[in-house]
Amino acid sequence: MSNTSHIFSLNAQLRNDANVLGSFPLCKLLIIKDAQYPWFVLVPGRANVTEIVQLSPSDRTQLLEESCQLQESLLAAYQPDKLNVAALGNMVSQLHLHHIARFRDDAAWPAPVWGKHPAVPYTDAQLADRLEALRPHLPETFVWGKQDE
Amino acid sequence: MSNTSHIFSLNAQLRNDANVLGSFPLCKLLIIKDAQYPWFVLVPGRANVTEIVQLSPSDRTQLLEESCQLQESLLAAYQPDKLNVAALGNMVSQLHLHHIARFRDDAAWPAPVWGKHPAVPYTDAQLADRLEALRPHLPETFVWGKQDE
Repeated sequence: MSNTSHIFSLNAQLRNDANVLGSFPLCKLLIIKDAQYPWFVLVPGRANVTEIVQLSPSDRTQLLEESCQLQESLLAAYQPDKLNVAALGNMVSQLHLHHIARFRDDAAWPAPVWGKHPAVPYTDAQLADRLEALRPHLPETFVWGKQDE
Repeated sequence: MSNTSHIFSLNAQLRNDANVLGSFPLCKLLIIKDAQYPWFVLVPGRANVTEIVQLSPSDRTQLLEESCQLQESLLAAYQPDKLNVAALGNMVSQLHLHHIARFRDDAAWPAPVWGKHPAVPYTDAQLADRLEALRPHLPETFVWGKQDE
């Protein structure tokens, strides 16, 4: 798919670094393949957008709603000491919003997680446990499964 | 002021690391004392809030609005390659939202700025230049000046 397409396509680097879990009405939900932190990413399904402010006003509001729903889900599922919510995009310019549940005894605390330690792959059992903890807390508007991207 | 007060007071570490420029309807606008990047922070004027999702729905919407206004202002004033927008708070738990104009040739690119290089203080002239570039792009709802905190 060319870079100038108006059809959304998940960035290849994100596809490599994360597993697609499913979709909110606007955003795909991904989990980063790093067992050190409960680290999730929202990717609005809009082509050629790199900054939050480039979204339409209604899409901005929907992104905020989905981010807050995910924040509530992460707080309930993992009971972290802090959430880190960030749109950086220096490496992958496709707009994506990190949501990381942070703990005072995690590998990077109190530093941000990016570039701090190499990713530690999940075992199948670890990943299943991580997702089972989250599953009951996601809203009904979230649909599990890797739909057509 | 005690930690259990219901009256907002700007965190001492933020007060030390940044200059207060003025106020949007909800948020204080600060500039971090680091000349390496155009680095601004929005701090909602609400006591005892550490996560975006803890804000009321109307405050969340207002924070998004002020963040998008600031994003537009930074894009217009500095023409950066990318914006970094982030609520971290591992060191300072009072809710605050970083907005950093990033350039492919800046000191930390493509890494995030936090913890990458020691801050480089602005000279008075550098700070004045930085703010003069921003001034015409801020919305009319922004009021310059360090009001009672």
